[in-house]
Amino acid sequence: MGRQGKFHRLWFMSLLLQTDASRRRKPMPSVASSVAEGSSLEQTLLAQYMSVRAQTMALIEPLSAEDMMLQSMPDASPTKWHLAHTTWFFETFLLQPHLSGYQPFNEAYQYLFNSYYETVGERHPRPQRGLLSRPLLTEILDYRAHVDAGMQRLLATPTSEIESAVTIGLHHEMQHQELLQTDIKHALSLNPYALNLDAAASPEAANSDTQQSPEFIYFAGGLSQVGTDANECFAYDCEQPRHQVFIPEFSLCERLVTNGEWLEFMQDNGYQNPQLWLSDGWATVQQEGWQAPLYWHRDGEKWMTMTQQNRVPLDLNAPVCHISYYEADAFARWRGCRLPTEFEWEFAAQAAEINGNFLESGHLLPQAAPPQPGLKQLFGDAWEWTQSPFIPYPGFTTPEGALAEYNGKFMANQWVLRGGSCATAKQQLRATYRNFFYAHQRWQFTSLRLAK
Amino acid sequence: MGRQGKFHRLWFMSLLLQTDASRRRKPMPSVASSVAEGSSLEQTLLAQYMSVRAQTMALIEPLSAEDMMLQSMPDASPTKWHLAHTTWFFETFLLQPHLSGYQPFNEAYQYLFNSYYETVGERHPRPQRGLLSRPLLTEILDYRAHVDAGMQRLLATPTSEIESAVTIGLHHEMQHQELLQTDIKHALSLNPYALNLDAAASPEAANSDTQQSPEFIYFAGGLSQVGTDANECFAYDCEQPRHQVFIPEFSLCERLVTNGEWLEFMQDNGYQNPQLWLSDGWATVQQEGWQAPLYWHRDGEKWMTMTQQNRVPLDLNAPVCHISYYEADAFARWRGCRLPTEFEWEFAAQAAEINGNFLESGHLLPQAAPPQPGLKQLFGDAWEWTQSPFIPYPGFTTPEGALAEYNGKFMANQWVLRGGSCATAKQQLRATYRNFFYAHQRWQFTSLRLAK
Amino acid sequence: MGRQGKFHRLWFMSLLLQTDASRRRKPMPSVASSVAEGSSLEQTLLAQYMSVRAQTMALIEPLSAEDMMLQSMPDASPTKWHLAHTTWFFETFLLQPHLSGYQPFNEAYQYLFNSYYETVGERHPRPQRGLLSRPLLTEILDYRAHVDAGMQRLLATPTSEIESAVTIGLHHEMQHQELLQTDIKHALSLNPYALNLDAAASPEAANSDTQQSPEFIYFAGGLSQVGTDANECFAYDCEQPRHQVFIPEFSLCERLVTNGEWLEFMQDNGYQNPQLWLSDGWATVQQEGWQAPLYWHRDGEKWMTMTQQNRVPLDLNAPVCHISYYEADAFARWRGCRLPTEFEWEFAAQAAEINGNFLESGHLLPQAAPPQPGLKQLFGDAWEWTQSPFIPYPGFTTPEGALAEYNGKFMANQWVLRGGSCATAKQQLRATYRNFFYAHQRWQFTSLRLAK
Amino acid sequence: MGRQGKFHRLWFMSLLLQTDASRRRKPMPSVASSVAEGSSLEQTLLAQYMSVRAQTMALIEPLSAEDMMLQSMPDASPTKWHLAHTTWFFETFLLQPHLSGYQPFNEAYQYLFNSYYETVGERHPRPQRGLLSRPLLTEILDYRAHVDAGMQRLLATPTSEIESAVTIGLHHEMQHQELLQTDIKHALSLNPYALNLDAAASPEAANSDTQQSPEFIYFAGGLSQVGTDANECFAYDCEQPRHQVFIPEFSLCERLVTNGEWLEFMQDNGYQNPQLWLSDGWATVQQEGWQAPLYWHRDGEKWMTMTQQNRVPLDLNAPVCHISYYEADAFARWRGCRLPTEFEWEFAAQAAEINGNFLESGHLLPQAAPPQPGLKQLFGDAWEWTQSPFIPYPGFTTPEGALAEYNGKFMANQWVLRGGSCATAKQQLRATYRNFFYAHQRWQFTSLRLAK
Repeated sequence: MGRQGKFHRLWFMSLLLQTDASRRRKPMPSVASSVAEGSSLEQTLLAQYMSVRAQTMALIEPLSAEDMMLQSMPDASPTKWHLAHTTWFFETFLLQPHLSGYQPFNEAYQYLFNSYYETVGERHPRPQRGLLSRPLLTEILDYRAHVDAGMQRLLATPTSEIESAVTIGLHHEMQHQELLQTDIKHALSLNPYALNLDAAASPEAANSDTQQSPEFIYFAGGLSQVGTDANECFAYDCEQPRHQVFIPEFSLCERLVTNGEWLEFMQDNGYQNPQLWLSDGWATVQQEGWQAPLYWHRDGEKWMTMTQQNRVPLDLNAPVCHISYYEADAFARWRGCRLPTEFEWEFAAQAAEINGNFLESGHLLPQAAPPQPGLKQLFGDAWEWTQSPFIPYPGFTTPEGALAEYNGKFMANQWVLRGGSCATAKQQLRATYRNFFYAHQRWQFTSLRLAK
Repeated sequence: MGRQGKFHRLWFMSLLLQTDASRRRKPMPSVASSVAEGSSLEQTLLAQYMSVRAQTMALIEPLSAEDMMLQSMPDASPTKWHLAHTTWFFETFLLQPHLSGYQPFNEAYQYLFNSYYETVGERHPRPQRGLLSRPLLTEILDYRAHVDAGMQRLLATPTSEIESAVTIGLHHEMQHQELLQTDIKHALSLNPYALNLDAAASPEAANSDTQQSPEFIYFAGGLSQVGTDANECFAYDCEQPRHQVFIPEFSLCERLVTNGEWLEFMQDNGYQNPQLWLSDGWATVQQEGWQAPLYWHRDGEKWMTMTQQNRVPLDLNAPVCHISYYEADAFARWRGCRLPTEFEWEFAAQAAEINGNFLESGHLLPQAAPPQPGLKQLFGDAWEWTQSPFIPYPGFTTPEGALAEYNGKFMANQWVLRGGSCATAKQQLRATYRNFFYAHQRWQFTSLRLAK
Repeated sequence: MGRQGKFHRLWFMSLLLQTDASRRRKPMPSVASSVAEGSSLEQTLLAQYMSVRAQTMALIEPLSAEDMMLQSMPDASPTKWHLAHTTWFFETFLLQPHLSGYQPFNEAYQYLFNSYYETVGERHPRPQRGLLSRPLLTEILDYRAHVDAGMQRLLATPTSEIESAVTIGLHHEMQHQELLQTDIKHALSLNPYALNLDAAASPEAANSDTQQSPEFIYFAGGLSQVGTDANECFAYDCEQPRHQVFIPEFSLCERLVTNGEWLEFMQDNGYQNPQLWLSDGWATVQQEGWQAPLYWHRDGEKWMTMTQQNRVPLDLNAPVCHISYYEADAFARWRGCRLPTEFEWEFAAQAAEINGNFLESGHLLPQAAPPQPGLKQLFGDAWEWTQSPFIPYPGFTTPEGALAEYNGKFMANQWVLRGGSCATAKQQLRATYRNFFYAHQRWQFTSLRLAK
Repeated sequence: MGRQGKFHRLWFMSLLLQTDASRRRKPMPSVASSVAEGSSLEQTLLAQYMSVRAQTMALIEPLSAEDMMLQSMPDASPTKWHLAHTTWFFETFLLQPHLSGYQPFNEAYQYLFNSYYETVGERHPRPQRGLLSRPLLTEILDYRAHVDAGMQRLLATPTSEIESAVTIGLHHEMQHQELLQTDIKHALSLNPYALNLDAAASPEAANSDTQQSPEFIYFAGGLSQVGTDANECFAYDCEQPRHQVFIPEFSLCERLVTNGEWLEFMQDNGYQNPQLWLSDGWATVQQEGWQAPLYWHRDGEKWMTMTQQNRVPLDLNAPVCHISYYEADAFARWRGCRLPTEFEWEFAAQAAEINGNFLESGHLLPQAAPPQPGLKQLFGDAWEWTQSPFIPYPGFTTPEGALAEYNGKFMANQWVLRGGSCATAKQQLRATYRNFFYAHQRWQFTSLRLAK
């Protein structure tokens, strides 16, 4: 089960939850809430909608129609599918129920671009999304325009129910923006001819390591509140409810592990030493032949990695990324440390501002930590594997209703990641946000922070 | 990775740990400690040794040499291998280092019956253990006698270091007693001709359900200590250290879920309804074609199951067993409940006496709960799946030393089970004991208790 | 091992053979030899070249750049790859060695579009051809134009050596024309939205069966010559040498088995009756769930099939196609007949004219046999499975030279097919031509003729 | 599909055929026909029966009940199963239909020891034969005695129908004698501890090569009769009918390829050079990691191989064996030769006496050819791979009747081997005998003879 399936199940469940909640409670804070005071709700919501949708279109700018066909593994989806599916969400959950007189763009799209489950109807098999040469890209772009036009009409008179659903739809689209980038990066990595799409973006070499030994920051821990309740801000069901945990004292490294440090691990035969690995991890290393993070390759004396568009020299001061949980865990053991729990991370992040290297920076890779003292890179740069399996919070309950079947469905065999990446839109993030992947997956921007 | 590999890694690590600890501390309480006062240490330890070894021999009584060859899946091992491997442990860790003049029975056995890892040398590939027609069973029995004779000499003058190692060896053998039973049960289940080994043991039919709706017992929870420290009693590393957790209020069902209740789940199409299942669980159900617990089959109107030796009618009042984590989780969801966490279970069990239906009862299957009020079946009958993944306790550290590589190696993708089964020796168990298996495995005696 | 690999190995070997032979012998008859007398060699060869190349371009007319990316299975290749690879052949074997001053279009194409083997250098992995979004289609079309321009210069002064190589290159491209069609047909069949590319080509319904019981034609057999020698006409190495075989008397059905007859087989539970099938065939039927030929599906009362571009009603009088060897063999057994040997077919075809429903007809599917008496449909419509495995002729020898490694490499586990199909260019065919595929493959236009 | 399934299908079909034929024709020559004149039919047939059955029992003499449980791959069966299944044949096809008052030994054996197909009823799944610890060996031996006693009664008054069926049953059992040996050899090869069962049989070292370059014998070929008709001698359906073929002139090597010659092939990197291999063969070499024939391993400077019971030094003058078709083909290509066709072999063998190194010799391995001139080792020592796929002879027809479904079922993707091996009973063999296996299989005693 890949990443996207999971998101949709949560969204749709949330959609019902929120919709229902909004009838009983005060309007839920939305992504639109940061817009300047004085602008009307409809203006800000529409502006927000147009802004997120435009961001998606900006991401495909370097890609051809042929690139947007690529599906390199079942975990990933073609760009074209992401473009259509995010649009399908607005058509299905906003325009069809709420915009009177709305005509669906094409009935077949219900089947083709539904990532949802049996109860909502048949859907195109996920591993065959790469076979959808039709509809053509031009048709998908027309579909986007058609739905955007409908949304403009609808958002002229939004209700609080519509606002809730649009908010979810926009978060949904932002997450697909991240997946769109990681999926196309993986696909292009398999074509020796495909890179350097944006020749202008030639990076300076950075194969030198000037980083100091990092500090560890001490936290006293104790009884603490983690998670959130839905009426405080937008949040997914798996972040709820807010509840008490006891956290023993701990220390966190001030920054993420760097590429330079990872090279030391490799030079110390980290990938060859079974003593460092979890049993399942060692089996995976053997089976997959892993010898370095995903996308690394050696070019003579120099190590290279890649962005979504180019091969670039490895920046030894930048955070390592594209590693599995197993690799993160083995590295921490090698260093005599461990991964943090998700609550240690959340405890440390509660007071932090949400600043960092996000999608908006355009960097396309994690960047070296700034030289300032204190905890850095909590948000952005790369997702941080925690040692916490993805399981329900105490009091997590399955909501009633048609979409209840999806509640918590992914709470087995996956691990929590925290903090966001350079491919995450800033406004998606918050200290309580729980991302989750299987321990062997590495095509996301995944890194680690040491704990003791 | 099956069950036995895991145990060995922990044993051996513990062996070093305990051995080391015993030099610095007062003698560790042992399995021998329950022996009547007045008997000397050497008598009690030797008596204990002979008793556990004799228990193993009693288990093979109904089996032929040909039965003891069977290996029906990589997760399981042949009976003959269990007999030899537990003996190898005493030869390798007690007789060779500590009994002067000891001659190994056969050099080749080091390779054949080592379940250990690369650092200790090559070992026979696990999935090919069923191909070991040689050494013959008679040779293995000679091996046991040879080692038992050596142990009798050694235990004439035990040191505290020897006592620690023997204690571990006996716990090791007791766990293999359980595996020996579950492995042979699985193998014989695949031979239509093999069962009814013990024709005398014909059980009365029990296909009627007289059980009342069970009560739920309320617990206030709060800050609580869980786990143990090594100097208190014998315990494995993964139970350590004792530490504080915050447990919200909860309720536990007074008894395990019964076969009768499981039939209701099946009749309500529990195995056909994707809304009840975790995503990975639903995929497993589809792939494996599960429609009932392992070993159930229908004989006309009557449901049958099996013991290690016979087909028997299903007792509707007895606890369901041989279910996966996925099935336990789906059943709990169907009932509007959930599985307990491992700490809820431990919190409730801390005050309980260790009584129940264990190996010693000879029942070979879980039994209906007695009609008394209050929490029942906490220990024995069947292992209880918890909703807690098997991960390290705060402060768990990798010990130094040659065997350090195995520390915590299995702490990924497995789930904690608590309480023991009808195939567990009573003295193995304690409230802090953590057993663990993968979510899809069902050949152990596994059941569930509902929580709210 | 798919179809294309095989062809290339044979071509290239033949290239060397022919080239060498042409130095010692009279000029080899070429595809150009049918051109009207009076035109000079250079004119006819160039005209032939331009004609074949134009035919390829005509085939892609209904396809988009996105369609031309599709690779639906390892056996198949994307259209774009076919376009580039056939061009690579002329660049590598004609322009680079023979056209002075020729500049390769792009060095990377040597790697990307080489289907060849280790000795000629690395090549892009076959199953990942569908990931080649780059080079873009527009670049491939430029590549074709660049090579065509070079070829025009080269063919202004052809030598006999060049003529030989061009002849092979054109046969090579013609075979890729067939593969291009069968590969894209397979890919589009998996997209519920993709068909009806050419809406104008709406066929009339043809679900009625007016065919009479067919006649069988008797042949006396006897000692006969089969195969060919290279100096007689263009032929591949596997058709050589001409040699004597003894053929017992036999009878051949006058026409191919029809769709109507195949429906009778299905209605008589042909796909459910293990007695009709080869052991390997029955295993394949079970594993693949075959219940009808490839591309058949039921639309209410009516059976449908598909062309490269459209879903169409099944013509019950037309030959069945897209069946495996196993299905052909089972059908023949069901009818109390058998498949012909390749030499029976060749014996019968030696006197026949090469007329029929070829690529040039534009029919895209086999057509009902005309009502005339005598053997029909020997050439064109659909390839005929024979009961002859693809093995070397007596006296077949591995040629010396750099490409010798590929000689006969595919002569194991494949079966000979004879006669060509509606996707074969007419001038590819001759009575001695041996096509070959694995017994389970069915995406080519494959059919059968009964023998007794 | 392994070897045994195939045999049974043919036997049973033949049983019907022969039975039917024997009613209309003169008594079929039987295995009993070589018995001294003057003895009555019943004496000779019974003597023959007892002799073959005793030979089977002699083969298990070195084995324990535990050894006889082993099944090391789906292609192979446990010894215990062979013992029971051959007995089941006589019970099912002789005693039940022909001996009045016969009581089956055990109803369950019909299911457990039937290798047959759906029409005769359910059977135990082939890959799980190794799980049949029950019935115990002692029960199987009782079964053999029970059936032997019945057969003695039946053969007191044999009819020609009974004689036919017994003849088939005895050929059936003789073939299982060969399989029993090759299956147990494979199983014991996987246990490092199991060999040297018969320590007395210590062979002299033979790692020196004194062989001369072998001669090739020329044959003029021409029109020739091959195969046989059923009324001439006992023969399987696939050897029938006798028919005419044209064989071009050819030469055969006087002896089989030796181990010494095979070492030269290995030293010349034969296993590393893709140019020598069929495409499917090269894929198999890569996938399986083949670097030498099966059972070869290096012990310091010396190459070792194994018999059914011991590891022994490789005799460089003895024929290579345990090679696949792919290896035989690659070796022949390396030597500039080819494999013979099955008809070349039969043409050369028609005049030869059936002498050689058979099961009766007790050698357990092929032996060096004697120094006499002329064709040697045609029969015995090791089966010779031919370049002929296993396909039907012209005029081969599916017989009518209940067992007709099995006719020719294995005539796809397998290759003909000729001549028998050191594990074949002499009286099984004749010049027309066609054995057949898949190209990748090497656990039989398989070798090659070069042809030109």
